[in-house]
Amino acid sequence: MAKTLPRSPLAPAAFPALPEIGGLRFASTAAGVRYQGRTDVMLAVMDPGTSVAGVFTRSATCSAPVLDCQAKLGSNTEQGAAILVNSGNSNAFTGHYGQTSVAEITAAVANKTGLPQDRVFTASTGVIGEPLPHDRILSKLDELNGTLSASAMKDAAEAIMTTDTFPKGSAATVDIDGTPVQIAGIAKGSGMIAPDMATMLVYIFTDAVYDQGRLQALLSAENDTSFNCITVDSDTSTSDSLMLCATGASGVDATDHPAFTEALRGVMLDLAHQVVRDGEGATKFVEIQITGAASDADAKIHGLAIANSPLVKTAIAGEDPNWGRVVMAIGKSGAKADRDLLSISFGDVLVAEKGWVAPSYKEELGAAEMRKEEITLKVDLGLGDGTATIWTCDLTHQYITINADYRS
Amino acid sequence: MAKTLPRSPLAPAAFPALPEIGGLRFASTAAGVRYQGRTDVMLAVMDPGTSVAGVFTRSATCSAPVLDCQAKLGSNTEQGAAILVNSGNSNAFTGHYGQTSVAEITAAVANKTGLPQDRVFTASTGVIGEPLPHDRILSKLDELNGTLSASAMKDAAEAIMTTDTFPKGSAATVDIDGTPVQIAGIAKGSGMIAPDMATMLVYIFTDAVYDQGRLQALLSAENDTSFNCITVDSDTSTSDSLMLCATGASGVDATDHPAFTEALRGVMLDLAHQVVRDGEGATKFVEIQITGAASDADAKIHGLAIANSPLVKTAIAGEDPNWGRVVMAIGKSGAKADRDLLSISFGDVLVAEKGWVAPSYKEELGAAEMRKEEITLKVDLGLGDGTATIWTCDLTHQYITINADYRS
Repeated sequence: MAKTLPRSPLAPAAFPALPEIGGLRFASTAAGVRYQGRTDVMLAVMDPGTSVAGVFTRSATCSAPVLDCQAKLGSNTEQGAAILVNSGNSNAFTGHYGQTSVAEITAAVANKTGLPQDRVFTASTGVIGEPLPHDRILSKLDELNGTLSASAMKDAAEAIMTTDTFPKGSAATVDIDGTPVQIAGIAKGSGMIAPDMATMLVYIFTDAVYDQGRLQALLSAENDTSFNCITVDSDTSTSDSLMLCATGASGVDATDHPAFTEALRGVMLDLAHQVVRDGEGATKFVEIQITGAASDADAKIHGLAIANSPLVKTAIAGEDPNWGRVVMAIGKSGAKADRDLLSISFGDVLVAEKGWVAPSYKEELGAAEMRKEEITLKVDLGLGDGTATIWTCDLTHQYITINADYRS
Repeated sequence: MAKTLPRSPLAPAAFPALPEIGGLRFASTAAGVRYQGRTDVMLAVMDPGTSVAGVFTRSATCSAPVLDCQAKLGSNTEQGAAILVNSGNSNAFTGHYGQTSVAEITAAVANKTGLPQDRVFTASTGVIGEPLPHDRILSKLDELNGTLSASAMKDAAEAIMTTDTFPKGSAATVDIDGTPVQIAGIAKGSGMIAPDMATMLVYIFTDAVYDQGRLQALLSAENDTSFNCITVDSDTSTSDSLMLCATGASGVDATDHPAFTEALRGVMLDLAHQVVRDGEGATKFVEIQITGAASDADAKIHGLAIANSPLVKTAIAGEDPNWGRVVMAIGKSGAKADRDLLSISFGDVLVAEKGWVAPSYKEELGAAEMRKEEITLKVDLGLGDGTATIWTCDLTHQYITINADYRS
């Protein structure tokens, strides 16, 4: 299915070169969970001493793997760790059978890798409510465990794709006290993407030494302004997982180091933006900058109301500088707004202020901004110091085409 | 623009016969506010003694006419009243100019009709942020005032259409103490339709005598489970207005009469459903019945999360019984849910229960339900007594087509 969709016009030119991370190896294979003719399972195995942090969907109907991961975080931290991910089936809303699948997979991976079972994390992504044929995965564990390689991260990124049109990766190198520390991550996601939780499947690795508790705090904080600030369609997956693993192989302790935080943030934003760029049917990448709100929380509410409005998203698809719909979205958001204090710009073109169209505005200026592939909408509420930046894409015919018949 | 869209496949077979309401006359005409070759202004004039109630959008960026109407409700109730509505331009986010337009129109209507200015209500619907050419309306006031007729309500329904593909009307007769009392209403709306406020433009009239204060209470209460329980696209208009006018011409006091309330509710639900049936691009009419929620408020949140989910709406468009997306929407709604207690049915087909697909469910049974033009989704949360019913439509290519280029 994923392979038949054309590559997003907003995709990066190429998959980035990802560094090898000491203490980390990958393998992937085609287990035929649902898709045919492509890889659909990846295994990552990390050496002893790895710190593992994770944030997961806040869905009240989250998947069996998410429940299992949440229960395991923070246990046996002196041990190695493994992550097994399949695409094609989300093992969500699969009742007790779903928990059995997770238990069987994690027990088998623990057995093959010699890790304790509570250090084996899994994720499943794809259709909801159908039993996961976990025997197909189990039958591939020998092959996966026998082909682990430090250089196979791109293959892993491809194995976890569903309706994605390109694999997503990002990397950074930080110099900490004269020693280079590596960060590299992969992600999948293109629909059922909304914030207010850890969105999609994202796995980020570093060879830094990092205190387990601080790693969790770091991930939660940075998630709040990266993955939690993107939206494709306002729909929140039952399976979303973001994990950050620090193997410590570099021997450099990066705990709370500002340069590491900054580099990690760069990788997280890059992956978050790539998810938006692969939004189902997307033809425009949109950054919404909210300033002057009564609070940061209000700014985020306004930004998401704009980003999730079908009428704003279809106007962007149609390259229509229909700023009235931006006003509508602000008005409906529920956060504080004063019609006569807010101002709206498309890129650097001031469109509206003081409760009406700006005297300097000309339709052709707004139309030129909307013809760009990357669009910036700026809204200043004129009320306070609250700010937020939200990223989204447009809503096109292709989104309907993809989603009106996903399961067939 | 509206005239070029094909009539919704969900439209009623014909516009209903509307009774004449004593003390009420209509006129409409083509003022060329924006559209060419069609009527775009309607005037309703009511006799002295008319009680007027209204509920309006909760948008923080609501239109100048809405602000004006809100200020006038309840004043000079012994007088007659008038309502002037134009389509094509919403006079929203038009700054001080917008207020000037409203003031000029209401002053002129008051002058022509002999009513006090604070009994002249207006509404404008159409594009946001462009100045209303109110002179075009003013130049038609003599014609409008000179052609008022008790039998011109259908023409009025047509004059207020924007992207509507059919005019909307509904009527009922109630017997109160042996005397027939008439109720008749008209509505417009097909996009930018979301609940949690008074949705769209709706005008309902009755010849009952009705206490002004109780009429307002009645309208607010009934609105909460009718117009506030429909959604087309989750977007909330800046102009939405619902007004109920009781001329008293029948001489029958219907204040707080249960039969009147029931008949009014029938008219309101009929009009609300017609708005959904004319949802932009709609091919399916969907009723979502939520039971067993922790509270009525929670039930409404769940119902709206399902109704507004792009993934649910596109699955319905594709006739795909993808109940996993219903689970997803419940999970993301924020209201209380327990994965293992909820059950989902499509029509009378039990699809999922106890955290998984129902043993009796077969895909072809669900698929048959989804092929129907009118679909019922039932969700029982298994938690309490909270209930809600929400009405919506599917999300199709035609919605994108209509909205990606509305202004051109």
